[in-house]
Amino acid sequence: MHTFEEHLENINKNLQTQTLLQTPPELYEPIVYTLAAGGKRIRPALVLMACELFGGNLEEAVSPALGVEIFHNFTLLHDDLMDQAPMRRGRDTVHIKWCPNVAILSGDAMFALAYTYLIQTYPNKVQEVVRAFNKIAIGVCEGQQYDMNFETAGEVSLGEYTEMIRLKTSVLLAGALQIGAIIGNASTKDELHLYNFGEQIGLAFQLQDDLLDLYADEDKFGKKLGGDIRVNKKTYLYLKALELADIKQRESLIAYFSSTESDEEKKIADIKAIYDNLDIQTHTLKAIETYYNLALKELGKIELPDERKKPLLDLAILLLGRNY
Amino acid sequence: MHTFEEHLENINKNLQTQTLLQTPPELYEPIVYTLAAGGKRIRPALVLMACELFGGNLEEAVSPALGVEIFHNFTLLHDDLMDQAPMRRGRDTVHIKWCPNVAILSGDAMFALAYTYLIQTYPNKVQEVVRAFNKIAIGVCEGQQYDMNFETAGEVSLGEYTEMIRLKTSVLLAGALQIGAIIGNASTKDELHLYNFGEQIGLAFQLQDDLLDLYADEDKFGKKLGGDIRVNKKTYLYLKALELADIKQRESLIAYFSSTESDEEKKIADIKAIYDNLDIQTHTLKAIETYYNLALKELGKIELPDERKKPLLDLAILLLGRNY
Repeated sequence: MHTFEEHLENINKNLQTQTLLQTPPELYEPIVYTLAAGGKRIRPALVLMACELFGGNLEEAVSPALGVEIFHNFTLLHDDLMDQAPMRRGRDTVHIKWCPNVAILSGDAMFALAYTYLIQTYPNKVQEVVRAFNKIAIGVCEGQQYDMNFETAGEVSLGEYTEMIRLKTSVLLAGALQIGAIIGNASTKDELHLYNFGEQIGLAFQLQDDLLDLYADEDKFGKKLGGDIRVNKKTYLYLKALELADIKQRESLIAYFSSTESDEEKKIADIKAIYDNLDIQTHTLKAIETYYNLALKELGKIELPDERKKPLLDLAILLLGRNY
Repeated sequence: MHTFEEHLENINKNLQTQTLLQTPPELYEPIVYTLAAGGKRIRPALVLMACELFGGNLEEAVSPALGVEIFHNFTLLHDDLMDQAPMRRGRDTVHIKWCPNVAILSGDAMFALAYTYLIQTYPNKVQEVVRAFNKIAIGVCEGQQYDMNFETAGEVSLGEYTEMIRLKTSVLLAGALQIGAIIGNASTKDELHLYNFGEQIGLAFQLQDDLLDLYADEDKFGKKLGGDIRVNKKTYLYLKALELADIKQRESLIAYFSSTESDEEKKIADIKAIYDNLDIQTHTLKAIETYYNLALKELGKIELPDERKKPLLDLAILLLGRNY
């Protein structure tokens, strides 16, 4: 068994040996640029970890794992264009460095490229692998659409928000594990338990992301706190606060989140005061713990000895164990 | 054996029974809208015809054929956005009727949906089918990139142009035939001959498209002649004329094609006069015939009796037999 870090090294080593720059360069340079930006490479590592969990041959999982990573980066590329985000991982986004058309077309080519990597595994597993991958791809598109809808929607319920982050974040983490399980020849039951594990970890992970945006230790966080509040992003914190707020707090939250505020620091301080008053941090931590415990329960149902599951458990702790 | 028209009917009947409208509707309505616009459905028919050519089971080819059609419509959707085309098949394009973000995301979902249909065939054929499809998808992206490059490029050679239309048009026609051949269990040799047949027919088809844009019978053509000249599109006609032009004609062509002309009718008449003087129509017809003959030669190499090949031959004649 390998640790998460060892799988990461395997992924990065393999990614570096790929010849991604083809002609025309205008199409491929943005792809190389996007993939060279780094990122945590969690998703391809999940493919390998799931495959190894069931005693599968890692060699057969490396190319599909790269496919998952290429797909993930494609979604970031198109999402950044749709969100008009100027920066990603400290660098200009593709539509800024080049232009929107390049971002559209290079993204499309990346999507096709992802499938090229995906199918390089056991021929008799390809249909199942591609079926799982298609479900990811369609889910992520649906999630992004819900996310865009929420920007202009009047009311968003916590249930709707959870479904959105399930589609936009969890489906890819869960699907990456599922693809590894398929290649590792898991039973249908174990494949499903591992998928569910990934889904719950994904929800916990996203909620923690929402929480850290305001409650992180700023020195360790690496960027300014309150970014979601600045751009009126309806996160778990905001929606939970709306649920618990009295009339005055509710009016204040809605007013702040439907306008662009010139004094951003006051806005953040005022909203944080409401959140603190409603104990939103504790509520969010409780929700994260609920998802985390559901994830562990699913992992527990997989019919394998605990020591085989240890790398995945360690990763879950690593992902959710950041300081706040 | 079925005729092209019978295969078309099969495709249209199957397409109508699909439940494409899912949630969120903002994502799926543009997909339904795009696929309802019609179009000639040549590409999915080619999948079925190729499968039947080799005695394959049509039932196993219908879903992949729909996948090919969905993919084709996805490329039109994103191309129209990149080209800022306001109309397609007599209706507003998706980015006009909705917005650019909807066009990007619905297109991405269509691309994923295409793969969902593509893999519904014999499990042991899926890897080969997806591999052929990936080659199409990447080729079409490369072709579109070359096409966009040519808009701003100073000089484009006839060879570069041919490579662009091969990627943008031929690869999909040839690939559709290849996918049908794979499902129909063709030999590798026959699969390649059929691919080459499609590639040459595609080149002939695109050159004829270029020719008809200026030399069609306007009553039958259904739109105004000279559209390519209006938008300074560097087609085969223009590039062949550049090759044959004297210094004065060359200067005139380049000047006209690098500016927006207020008197469009004079521009078209002047350019047509140059083309006529250089006998561009005859040159283009000759090139079409060369490609057509190469296509027939490839079809002839397939080790099957001529009567099995008749539907494909009839289709080639139909596609290239329009009046001009």
